[in-house]
Amino acid sequence: MKPMNYWKKAAVALMLAGFGSFGFSYQPASAMQHPVTIEDQGSFMAGGKTVTAPGTYDGTKPTDFAGETLHGDHAYVFYQKPVKAKKTSMVFLHGYGQSGKTWETTPDGRDGFQNIFLEKGYKTYVVDEPGRGKAGRRTTPGTVSAQPDDQLWFNTFRIGEWPDTYDNVAVPRTKEAEEQFFHAMTPDTAPFDQQVVADAMTAVMDKAGDGVLVTHSAGGAPGWLTGIQSEHVKGIISLEPGAFPFPKGQAPAVEKTTSPFPATPMEVSMEDFLKLTKIPTVIYFGDNIPKGDTPVANWGQDNWRVRWNLAKKWETVMRSYGADVSVVSLPDIGIKGSTHFMMADLNNREVADAMVKWMHERKLDR
Amino acid sequence: MKPMNYWKKAAVALMLAGFGSFGFSYQPASAMQHPVTIEDQGSFMAGGKTVTAPGTYDGTKPTDFAGETLHGDHAYVFYQKPVKAKKTSMVFLHGYGQSGKTWETTPDGRDGFQNIFLEKGYKTYVVDEPGRGKAGRRTTPGTVSAQPDDQLWFNTFRIGEWPDTYDNVAVPRTKEAEEQFFHAMTPDTAPFDQQVVADAMTAVMDKAGDGVLVTHSAGGAPGWLTGIQSEHVKGIISLEPGAFPFPKGQAPAVEKTTSPFPATPMEVSMEDFLKLTKIPTVIYFGDNIPKGDTPVANWGQDNWRVRWNLAKKWETVMRSYGADVSVVSLPDIGIKGSTHFMMADLNNREVADAMVKWMHERKLDR
Repeated sequence: MKPMNYWKKAAVALMLAGFGSFGFSYQPASAMQHPVTIEDQGSFMAGGKTVTAPGTYDGTKPTDFAGETLHGDHAYVFYQKPVKAKKTSMVFLHGYGQSGKTWETTPDGRDGFQNIFLEKGYKTYVVDEPGRGKAGRRTTPGTVSAQPDDQLWFNTFRIGEWPDTYDNVAVPRTKEAEEQFFHAMTPDTAPFDQQVVADAMTAVMDKAGDGVLVTHSAGGAPGWLTGIQSEHVKGIISLEPGAFPFPKGQAPAVEKTTSPFPATPMEVSMEDFLKLTKIPTVIYFGDNIPKGDTPVANWGQDNWRVRWNLAKKWETVMRSYGADVSVVSLPDIGIKGSTHFMMADLNNREVADAMVKWMHERKLDR
Repeated sequence: MKPMNYWKKAAVALMLAGFGSFGFSYQPASAMQHPVTIEDQGSFMAGGKTVTAPGTYDGTKPTDFAGETLHGDHAYVFYQKPVKAKKTSMVFLHGYGQSGKTWETTPDGRDGFQNIFLEKGYKTYVVDEPGRGKAGRRTTPGTVSAQPDDQLWFNTFRIGEWPDTYDNVAVPRTKEAEEQFFHAMTPDTAPFDQQVVADAMTAVMDKAGDGVLVTHSAGGAPGWLTGIQSEHVKGIISLEPGAFPFPKGQAPAVEKTTSPFPATPMEVSMEDFLKLTKIPTVIYFGDNIPKGDTPVANWGQDNWRVRWNLAKKWETVMRSYGADVSVVSLPDIGIKGSTHFMMADLNNREVADAMVKWMHERKLDR
């Protein structure tokens, strides 16, 4: 973590407090901190499969689909390679109700991790998982309900208790930012299938090469499976993952919670579990997570109390097999006010710096 | 159009023919022609609306959605601004079954229009329309069928008559490119609504500022409405649009076609039509489009025969009101073998150069 000097810190604090700009040049919120020269960028689809409709194709009947094919279940990736790029690829997998947008511009127009890591010299790979975003085509049908549920997520993401934002969270307070945040939610085009996501992610890693897989929330579970399946995953950084894979028979009981989403452990074979213990892993949790074994009435917070507890149990099991794994509470390392969307909060550069420090200690920042 | 010198042309032709690389340094297919320094890039949601579920919100009941909100019907935009950017923004709207991917890397890994225009110094705005790609959230529900239909589109996009690719089309012949192409198809999350798209696009233009709107196929219709609604549309380049807006009462009859998709004209008020006549417009059609009034058995081609005819009728009406509009057949200006996806064909840089020439003549290349 590269701390700002005192005067810059004081100036930024005053600006955030609404005292306007100062004598020094202030970069507008929408711009990158410095220009980046891109050597290559583009997009590709990775993985997936082809299914064929029953019957024999007849080209004279355009609306008879007998024998026609569908290509689905792939991931979409937008990649960028800066000049003199580091060897390590950074691969970003979003969570529930999200797309690659998670890692792009923040709701208030600042740089997200896509730009921040590009500025730091990394090749970035921003993924839309199968059934989400530009990877919308699945081989299974689906329905999209259009059920209003913004408030369920506002509370679950620990931004506050709707309509109140917690006093201590590092989020912008503007209507415009709130609207950008909610509009970024995007539905599944078919029921979520973590093995389908993991298989596509394994193909993504084949194209990205050796790198660090960064997962968020519901991206955590398929991320663990990707680590098991792909030899290109050299490190995993998981931001508040929803689930953790234990060796079969060693999973703890599901803890009681006031959240509608219990923290159910995953189970994998011992062989697969051991593969995961070989990958350096760090897990970050944000602020406003109650600690302890007693459910709290605030179900949005309790959702993460049980996940923190499960993560700590998983850390113990992983370490008992020699794994380099750390479950970190950001406030404990001086990063305050993080919501579930720590990659987009006002202090997201501090989170990125903590990630780079962790990578540096494991020679993954080269 | 900047022609390659003779030897480079000959070398490239040999390489395409499979004779491998030469003594000179050959840029891999996946790389940009030259590095581009980016001053700013990111993404935003534009337009859309908020709906609220009936009832009163109760924060103690997480799975009771009474009074909760949903933000939908917006567009998603990924933008990039090179250093010393031209004033004109290039805004790209995809067609049916597509997303912003249309304008990104081609199926065989070459630069698409996103990179080509960035290299030429333009700010680019690549859109996912409401209900597509990263703008998946609509305020209306939908179903996604997973009906195999690749062959319907292969023929309609004039790549060939499945399983045969036309001899003369400028498309790669590899299995990998074909798979990338089909995987890029992506469904609507709710029924397509061209007014919803046009409203979101109008908000996109508010953010992009004065620019050229580039539309493709089914993006054509909402593109015309965007031109009518937004004063920021200073030029329209439409690649094989599916429909054309006539003043009420002046629309021609629907022509008979062997295609399952008749070319039905749109109707707009005279006031709106006159707004459109003020915007310089060029329409490009590719190769393998039969000319004349007689339906042909090849329904994939006949689909475009009737659209070419309708475009020509529209050009006549537009010009009768003083519009600067041209309907251009690419083979007539020396660009051969274009499919419906002329922005991704092997000669897509020639198409881009034709666009720039047209923009230059209208001082839109500044």
